[in-house]
Amino acid sequence: MPALDLPSFDDIREAQRRIAAHCHRTPVVTSRTLDELTGTEVFLKCENLQRGGAFKVRGALNAVLGLTDEQAARGVAAHSSGNHAACLALAASVRGIPCVVVMPRGAPRAKVDAVRSYGGRVVECEPTLAAREKVLAEVLADTGATEIHPYDDPRVIAGAGTACLELLEEIPDLGLVIAPVSGGGLLSGTAIAAHGCDTGVEVWGAEPTGADDAHRSLVAGRRVAGSAGHTIADGLLAELSDRTFLALRAHVHDIVTVTDDEIIEAMRFLFERTKLVVEPSGATALAGLWKRPGPLPERAGVIISGGNLDLGSLPF
Amino acid sequence: MPALDLPSFDDIREAQRRIAAHCHRTPVVTSRTLDELTGTEVFLKCENLQRGGAFKVRGALNAVLGLTDEQAARGVAAHSSGNHAACLALAASVRGIPCVVVMPRGAPRAKVDAVRSYGGRVVECEPTLAAREKVLAEVLADTGATEIHPYDDPRVIAGAGTACLELLEEIPDLGLVIAPVSGGGLLSGTAIAAHGCDTGVEVWGAEPTGADDAHRSLVAGRRVAGSAGHTIADGLLAELSDRTFLALRAHVHDIVTVTDDEIIEAMRFLFERTKLVVEPSGATALAGLWKRPGPLPERAGVIISGGNLDLGSLPF
Repeated sequence: MPALDLPSFDDIREAQRRIAAHCHRTPVVTSRTLDELTGTEVFLKCENLQRGGAFKVRGALNAVLGLTDEQAARGVAAHSSGNHAACLALAASVRGIPCVVVMPRGAPRAKVDAVRSYGGRVVECEPTLAAREKVLAEVLADTGATEIHPYDDPRVIAGAGTACLELLEEIPDLGLVIAPVSGGGLLSGTAIAAHGCDTGVEVWGAEPTGADDAHRSLVAGRRVAGSAGHTIADGLLAELSDRTFLALRAHVHDIVTVTDDEIIEAMRFLFERTKLVVEPSGATALAGLWKRPGPLPERAGVIISGGNLDLGSLPF
Repeated sequence: MPALDLPSFDDIREAQRRIAAHCHRTPVVTSRTLDELTGTEVFLKCENLQRGGAFKVRGALNAVLGLTDEQAARGVAAHSSGNHAACLALAASVRGIPCVVVMPRGAPRAKVDAVRSYGGRVVECEPTLAAREKVLAEVLADTGATEIHPYDDPRVIAGAGTACLELLEEIPDLGLVIAPVSGGGLLSGTAIAAHGCDTGVEVWGAEPTGADDAHRSLVAGRRVAGSAGHTIADGLLAELSDRTFLALRAHVHDIVTVTDDEIIEAMRFLFERTKLVVEPSGATALAGLWKRPGPLPERAGVIISGGNLDLGSLPF
């Protein structure tokens, strides 16, 4: 397939059929307090309640279940220190195939344990991108496994888009949908799903000010490489690929940048008022909705992307 | 109405129709990890995601919305230091009527603020049951308000039963339902709802060992007054009334008692694995399911009763 191929709306609907039996149709949660605070009806799509604790399992499942039997037999592999690691291992366990995840030394113990709990094999490497890529290349050469990239892959993007598709099936008349942006896979899939359902939905991204390459790229009209980011939202440090940049430029209205304090405030609200355990990345879209300029439409959808965090170090 | 009147299944269905527009139909959450741990399919009815953060709003709404206009105009009142306080104020705000809550000095600031945030008036008193009852009697005499008891009231019990009714409408073939027991209102309503849907469902209660008057009462075959209880599940310190004892004796298979450590373990599981913020009382039924003797049926329902707690003092 061409290097910059993006999934179509039909690909997202096909992904939904493919993965439905293996992941949750997550609840859409509402809060009158939130509606009063924002002056709009807000619908939280709770991917923190997803299997593996994050939307990532959707893309991983769609990619793994779409492999031929021959490909599948050789397994899958990725380098990741985040939610993609455990979610890929989970997806591989669903199909009963091998999974290797290259993880940097010093990755959180909980993330390493999660991969192993799903039967994945962890290969440690030095904590640099170059080392991660080199070790992954060796694993792929040794095993013949298929690499499943965490976001720069049409199958993964299509899977990620199924969360927004479910949201719009349940709440069809949203004026706006907002999702966090890191590498851009979730936001690309969200945008393609939203505009497949209704071309009138405004799609927004939310990004930490400390890792705002997507915002700067859309402003510049070309993909701007980020410097090393710093944010409490450790799931949002990745950078756009050419593919996700194209999708965002075509579909995304704008990106709101939010500070770590604003992310923590949204996180606290979600814990205290909606009783949801949400990681900083998962609260970023709500922080973006609060900060977004201009009047809100009557109804807005927010993708709560994940809930995996160390409860011993809550930032409040 | 007779002193020991209990709601019928029809009363619970009527309560459901009455309150539906004013509270959430809460999600039913599942977890494959939990299914594997227990060897059964477990369905968590998430009343921590209810308005006001607890099932209590169901009973309060049913009672408040069932008042005549003349009664309603004089308002409602209760003494409470727990979830009933805020939920009654919330229900009164829905009908636009006055609400007074007598609260002991030293009640958690968050609970007092919650009552006020819904427009309720807080009257402080000394932290003894005698003082609470005396001050409430004065409030009732002054205002002509109707007392809404937190559990010893058929309207409140009927409202509480709507959570189980929703659960069984969504998951009709449960072999067992378990709910926490304090004053017994939730468990009474749960049992009447369950047996109205399907006489074959086993209904169980879960109670802290440090406040186990319901367990001892069922064993003794008569209502046993508790001594002052001590448990981390501060929502489960109330005692059965004659009315709720009768309901439990007629409908409840047995009560499992659980230690505070077992409650904390269930709470931690719910935070970490299902991403739900749950107060100790709200995790007690899951602890009870884990500890319950004998083989489990193929499918079990668990009432997660509430999620209001101070996030600054999590017990893990």
